[in-house]
Formats: sequence, C-alpha cells, structure tokens
Amino acid sequence: MKIQLAPGPSELYFTVGDHLRQALREGIGSISHRSKTFEEISQIATAGLRQLLGVPPGFHFFFTSSATEVWERAIENLVEKTSFHYVNGAFSKRFFEISQQLHRQARAAEVPAGTAFLEASPIDAELIAITHNETSTGVAVPLPWIAQVREKNPASLIIVDAVSSLPYPQFDYSLLDSVFFSVQKGFGMPAGLGVWMVNDRCISKAEQLVSKGISIGSYHNLLTLLENSKKNQTPSTPNVLGIYLLSRVVQDLLNRGIDNIRRETDYKAALLYQTLQAHAQVQPFVQQKEWRSKTVVVANTGDRTHALAAYLEHHGFLAGDGYGALKKSQLRFANFPAHSKEQFERLADLISSFKAQ
Amino acid sequence: MKIQLAPGPSELYFTVGDHLRQALREGIGSISHRSKTFEEISQIATAGLRQLLGVPPGFHFFFTSSATEVWERAIENLVEKTSFHYVNGAFSKRFFEISQQLHRQARAAEVPAGTAFLEASPIDAELIAITHNETSTGVAVPLPWIAQVREKNPASLIIVDAVSSLPYPQFDYSLLDSVFFSVQKGFGMPAGLGVWMVNDRCISKAEQLVSKGISIGSYHNLLTLLENSKKNQTPSTPNVLGIYLLSRVVQDLLNRGIDNIRRETDYKAALLYQTLQAHAQVQPFVQQKEWRSKTVVVANTGDRTHALAAYLEHHGFLAGDGYGALKKSQLRFANFPAHSKEQFERLADLISSFKAQ
Repeated sequence: MKIQLAPGPSELYFTVGDHLRQALREGIGSISHRSKTFEEISQIATAGLRQLLGVPPGFHFFFTSSATEVWERAIENLVEKTSFHYVNGAFSKRFFEISQQLHRQARAAEVPAGTAFLEASPIDAELIAITHNETSTGVAVPLPWIAQVREKNPASLIIVDAVSSLPYPQFDYSLLDSVFFSVQKGFGMPAGLGVWMVNDRCISKAEQLVSKGISIGSYHNLLTLLENSKKNQTPSTPNVLGIYLLSRVVQDLLNRGIDNIRRETDYKAALLYQTLQAHAQVQPFVQQKEWRSKTVVVANTGDRTHALAAYLEHHGFLAGDGYGALKKSQLRFANFPAHSKEQFERLADLISSFKAQ
Repeated sequence: MKIQLAPGPSELYFTVGDHLRQALREGIGSISHRSKTFEEISQIATAGLRQLLGVPPGFHFFFTSSATEVWERAIENLVEKTSFHYVNGAFSKRFFEISQQLHRQARAAEVPAGTAFLEASPIDAELIAITHNETSTGVAVPLPWIAQVREKNPASLIIVDAVSSLPYPQFDYSLLDSVFFSVQKGFGMPAGLGVWMVNDRCISKAEQLVSKGISIGSYHNLLTLLENSKKNQTPSTPNVLGIYLLSRVVQDLLNRGIDNIRRETDYKAALLYQTLQAHAQVQPFVQQKEWRSKTVVVANTGDRTHALAAYLEHHGFLAGDGYGALKKSQLRFANFPAHSKEQFERLADLISSFKAQ
C-alpha cells in the first residue's frame, strides 16, 4: 500500500489495524457509552493525552465529532459579541467565517499565505483565535509569539487550533484557555473524532452567557460536556470505536516517548526542507525559516507539480495536493508520527533525484 | 462473544468485521474526503439507502455525527419561532428540550410512558416533531396516525425521528419532510454517524430563515450540507470509515431484501411478545398492541430484573437495562436485522423457562 503524505486524513499509525482487530474481538463496537467499559476507555484516552501533551490539571478534555465542530462550539460558548482571528490561510479564515455565520462581531488580522504575524498588540475581543499550524500553507506561528499575544491580552480567552500540529508542539498551557485538534492528522487515526481542551475560564464564560440568557447550544455546550466528562461519559452516543483507538494510539505514543517523537519530527522536517532548498526545480513555499511548519511541509512545485506527484506515487508515496487555488502549483507533505525516518529519507532521495523535462 | 440486545449501540451486523478488515486493506482510513474514492463511497451509501428505504427523489441525504446532532440542526434550520413535539418518553422529550435550549417557543403534547397519542389535531407550529419509535419505552406510533398528523397540518414541516426503527418501517415519505436515524441501532454498525433526510420544503425553510437574517449555524447548516452533497462530499472531514461501512452494510441488507427483513422483524417481535405475555412473572410493558414497537421490545420485569438479566447473560444474551428511572424494573430487547430468528427463538425459550425464586 502507498504511503499517504497528505496532511489529513493521513497515514494511519502503524498500530491502528491491530487495535481495530482487537476492538472487534472485544466487542467494542457494541458497548454502551453508559457502560463501565466505555468510562474506562474514555478515562484512559484523556489521562493518556494529558500525560503525552503535558496538559496541567485545570484543563478538561471533551470529545467532539471533528475540529470543525469545535470552531462552532467555541464561538457559541465563549463569545457573546466579539471574536478576533489571526488569519493566514484557509483554515484560520474558516474559523473567522464561522463566527460571522453565528452573527458575532468577528474581526481578523489577515496576512498573505505563507506568512505569519508580526508583533502582537492589545485586542479588544472576548476570544482570540490562533491557528498554530495553517494546514493550507504550511506556516506554524512561533510559540514565543503566542506568549506575546497572551501578554498583551490578559483578559481575553485565547483558543489555539492545533489540528495539524499536535502532538508535536509543547505548548505552555498556562498561557492558553483552549486547544483543540482532530485525530486524523498527527495521531494517525481514521477521521471522525475531535478533542477539545478547555480551562475553567472557558467554563465560567459559558456560565456567564447562560446567566445573561444567551443560548450556548444544546447537547454539546460546555456545561453539558463538563457534567458528562466528570463521569468519563459523553452527552450523546459518540464515536466509541474512535475513542477506543485514541486510547490505544496514545499509549503507543507514550511508549515511544514524546521527546523521541519531537526529535524525529525535527529531523524529518529538516531533511525535507534541506532537500527542497537544494533542488533546482522546487522550493519550500514558506520563506521565513521561523515560520516553517515542522508537521506540514509545503513545496512550490509550479508546473512540475503533476510530474513530481506522479514520480513520487510511482515510488510509493502519495503527496498531498496544494490547497485551494494552489492545488496545481504546490504539493504538501505531512510529517506526522506515523511517518518514519526511513520513509522520509527515501522521500528526500526521491525528490533529490527528480528532474522534470 | 455474547449477543448484544441493548437497543443501541447494539449487536454489530454480522458482516461488519469483514468490511472493517477490507477497509484496512484498501486504506480507507487514509483517504481524503475530497477524493473520487470518497465520493463514490458516499454515493453508493446514499443511493443504497434510498433504494432500501424506498425514499423518493426530492429527498436529500446528509451525514451528521449522530441523531442527537440532527435534533439540534433541525431546530436551527427549520424553526424560526415555534416547534411542537409529541412526547412519550426520554428521547422525544430531549428533542423538545433542545428546541427550548435554542430559545425557540417549543410546545409539547406529553403522554405517559408506554403510551402513544390519540387523534391528531391542528397545531400551530412551523415544525412538528414525531418520534416514530421511543427507544426508552418501546412504543412505536402507528403509521396511520402519522398520516393523520399530516392531514391536519398541511402547512407545517413534519420531522420523524426513526433512530431505533429504520430500516424496518416503510414510511410514506410523501407525507413527511424529514426523517433521520443513527447507524448503531437498526443498521448494526459502530456508533458515530447519523443520517439526515430532508425534502426541498426543508431547504426552502432554511433559505427563508437566512433571508430574514437568522443564523442557521455554520458548517452543518442545510444549505452547506446540500451544496456539498451535490458532489457526494461533506462540509468537513466526516467519519469516513463509518460511511464506508454504511455503504457496505446497506448493500448486504439490499441483498437480503427489505421484505425479508421486515417479515423476520415481525416474526421475532411476535415471538417475544407472546413469550412475555405467556409468562407468569414478566410482562410486556406496552399494553396497547398497536403501540408495541417491533424493533425495541420492553418488558416489565419488576424485582426479577436482575435475576432475569443474569440468567440471560449466563446463556449468552445481554439484555438492555430499562431506561432512566425504570433501569431496575424493566429490560429492553432490541429486535434489529443483526439479530437472527434463531437467536430470538433461543431467547424466547430461555425466557419461557425462566422462573425466579
């Protein structure tokens, strides 16, 4: 089978097949989400995530159907009137648009694709939305810049979209109020599950909205999610099999060690960027080195896009298309824990030896 | 492995394991939801469902994360001010409450658990919500009564919650505007996917709300769902594996034949109700025969509940607990296509021979 390098859904973590077969043997597909067995699975998944990502107590973990759902729930539960969005690509923009669709006063600082943001300044907004890793362009905002946003905005809630970067980044969670991701990227799982972390400031904000008579949604509002999560349950029947797989994959990543995973991610990213920089026909899209994502590497491939993609596919690698308007002039390469060093060494060799007519 | 008779998540359809293994071999867990492969899978699933359930053209099929999500999306997209809910148990009540949580003027006709509704009358509401099969109590409303609700209310939109009855009922879809279900009940699949059918009156209603400046939600509003479904796509990354499994299970059910499935469901239900009626210590909960659900059979088991459940479990059957306050005095038995005639014959024998001290 070819190796999937699209940034999500991406390559499955190599243990997922075994875990799925084990789930079938254990009858996980038929268990009740109100059963002790489910509560245990859910508890193992969230405790494992907390350990793997280094999330302090005071953060709650909730399961959603996707990160897209979190965009909507975050606006519903954390914004009465004003949200502010740092926009540098299609996904940060979508979060901004969702706030508008929900009739909030949404504002944005927008910068060109391939770039990130200059010095942070004070912003008058209840919620500030930062996309840590813009999947469409391969830009990651630097962690010190996130700290600066917090420093200038102590009163705002800050939410970080880490969809295509976790488990790689070691966030300072004490600076953040909410972080979320979906499992089909860095966790190497089949799509259909999102994880939403929030602190008590978020809970208080949702309570405030309720006390003002504002609807915060129904089954997936923060207060209902919290009440259920205290029992390691969910408000409605969730993707039980997905939560089981997450509980297992997180254990696998813990066994491998988060430091190893981060080191290998750095190594693979450096190798791929060097290869692109040294190439005569293709280049890294993101110019500023400190803005280059470690987990989604985007290459300017111009009119060689199709030739390079076909060449890589012939050798067993499925590169991701460029996003949107750049579909035919860029390729994207996910660099997730599911992708091994050996695969990236082979990929780098292939790209180096590629020469279009 | 024991046979799961809880009404959802319930027993997996016997082909699900093979389909999951095939999905792993085909790399379905890594495909993009924007790929041709996904579009084909999605098209096979919805075309198969249309054929299996006898849904006429003019109805659109959308994927959600659960039926619970449909409750919320239906209120957001189909109700400006007023919804009306026929309530006869916990799940019909939850739909009613969600409308209240979303600040609509929700009204309800509530009848005691174990009963359904008398003659329908004209109702002044934009949306009328009917729960075809109350999973908590084992009551199914008769199809002629649904026709009566339509007759008295030609202008209202009528939505039918068929979560724990489809694919069994043959609805007259020309009388309905929307029907929905989730896959972990009658379709014998792992939880994490809902299917929402709507007609063009629903689409028009959502358009009207938008033209009045009312928010209908974001990524899963009806207009965005429709736009994406025309390409056999979804607005956000869905449970791809779930949609794949649905496409396969629906083909299996088509091969078996919906008439056979309905006949077998009738046979198994008749057998179980007769067994309960003939028993000295346990009885059917629902008294009126025309209100007895064919797909979720509820038994009054009183202080024999634990003894009967333990006896059945010892012999390989996991009965479902009673719902809510009736957890310790009732048992629920799902009668889905995943449950064979032979299993029900054995179950009936076991119940007949059960005698508590």
